[in-house]
Amino acid sequence: MTTRIIAKDMKRRLLLVSNSTLHGGGYLEHCQQQIKDFFGKGVARILFIPYALCDRDGYAKTARDKFNSLGYEVDSIHEASDPVEAVRKAEGIFIGGGNTFRLLKCLYDNNVLSEINKRVLQDGVPYMGSSAGTNVSTVSINTTNDMPIVYPPSFNAIGLVPFNINPHFLDTDPNSRHMGETREQRIIQYHEEPDTTSVLGLREGSMLLVEGNKATLLGTCKARLFTRGKPTTEFESGSDLSFLLTDRQ
Amino acid sequence: MTTRIIAKDMKRRLLLVSNSTLHGGGYLEHCQQQIKDFFGKGVARILFIPYALCDRDGYAKTARDKFNSLGYEVDSIHEASDPVEAVRKAEGIFIGGGNTFRLLKCLYDNNVLSEINKRVLQDGVPYMGSSAGTNVSTVSINTTNDMPIVYPPSFNAIGLVPFNINPHFLDTDPNSRHMGETREQRIIQYHEEPDTTSVLGLREGSMLLVEGNKATLLGTCKARLFTRGKPTTEFESGSDLSFLLTDRQ
Repeated sequence: MTTRIIAKDMKRRLLLVSNSTLHGGGYLEHCQQQIKDFFGKGVARILFIPYALCDRDGYAKTARDKFNSLGYEVDSIHEASDPVEAVRKAEGIFIGGGNTFRLLKCLYDNNVLSEINKRVLQDGVPYMGSSAGTNVSTVSINTTNDMPIVYPPSFNAIGLVPFNINPHFLDTDPNSRHMGETREQRIIQYHEEPDTTSVLGLREGSMLLVEGNKATLLGTCKARLFTRGKPTTEFESGSDLSFLLTDRQ
Repeated sequence: MTTRIIAKDMKRRLLLVSNSTLHGGGYLEHCQQQIKDFFGKGVARILFIPYALCDRDGYAKTARDKFNSLGYEVDSIHEASDPVEAVRKAEGIFIGGGNTFRLLKCLYDNNVLSEINKRVLQDGVPYMGSSAGTNVSTVSINTTNDMPIVYPPSFNAIGLVPFNINPHFLDTDPNSRHMGETREQRIIQYHEEPDTTSVLGLREGSMLLVEGNKATLLGTCKARLFTRGKPTTEFESGSDLSFLLTDRQ
């Protein structure tokens, strides 16, 4: 993990989406304009990483159909004979949602984690993540909502930003009779542990655009920031969140 | 892990509770009659394990107050100079809820996991778990609902029963607009993986009593059983679930 880059003034370009599908809409429909703006006309082919779901063929078809409709060709990494080489040649990367533990384990198993880090931070290859794909782009998967169905060799993730994200962030329902921890309580428990980072709670419909050292909140709703030892803060869509990139938060 | 016992005809006595607090009630109030029936008059002192919460002193006080009111003395393992020795001397064990990852890591860090297994399965020391304390009594924590705030050395748990439990089991809300996976979808994802066990979804208010090779569902609601490759099944309170104990399910 020590070989990964946490440099400043990097070329990174990231589109980190909270959720793949918004209630009542189609797959990636709610963020399709942002996807086109993000990959633009400079990228012709996108490398899709379907590791978070069991049915990789079906998942690749779903992603391919959507991206084709937006004008992009899709190569799925599970169809490549050499996954590391596929990352080395990628013009753009998209990691889709599903189970974050399965996804991270599979990134390690295929030795592509460091390579993705390098391609995005050194070479400026644009990276889009959705849900679990957003989780693994951060420091660690310590703030995923997913069930730990497999045991990855570490919770450390690709590290494209120096903080963590909680996708599908869910506000506490004051009428709930369920006594499991609320999402907010879970994130507060994370901050009880030493050496933990800030956590950006991205509600469904929101996403974070990162260009170099600039971060902007996009989408239809506010995001909630949890920083250890400080009050939680709400940010409107359009907010400049670049301060999250300056140091490990 | 290989030293742990998966023997039959064992003395084990377990009370595995879904949740510590039921909506509108006090701590362990909804299961206090079952606790008294379970520990009975043969046990005077109970060893409490507060590792799932950060504030161990506060947690021990909560547990002590409750168990004192039921006629039991409480020793908290975090107050013992030698945690392994505390398990060796325990007449009864209670592991409380909180974060399952923190709890399991701490059981490993203090080398008490195998010792608890031995005391319960070989020596017949009664074991009560609630929520996270129920999760860690099973084969693994693969079906916890908790956030992975720390990285335990394994997801393998104490192994007092040959299946997994999902505490705080929550039915799918047909009116929800949230697009994160439902609990049922998460457990189905677990069963997509190889070498996975049956999962008993214990709704809040329900609990499982295990006496030797007999398992009985107690409490106020039904439980839902997920077995790989089979339809899910509902069981009424009072059901005999001993078949879950015969083999690794």
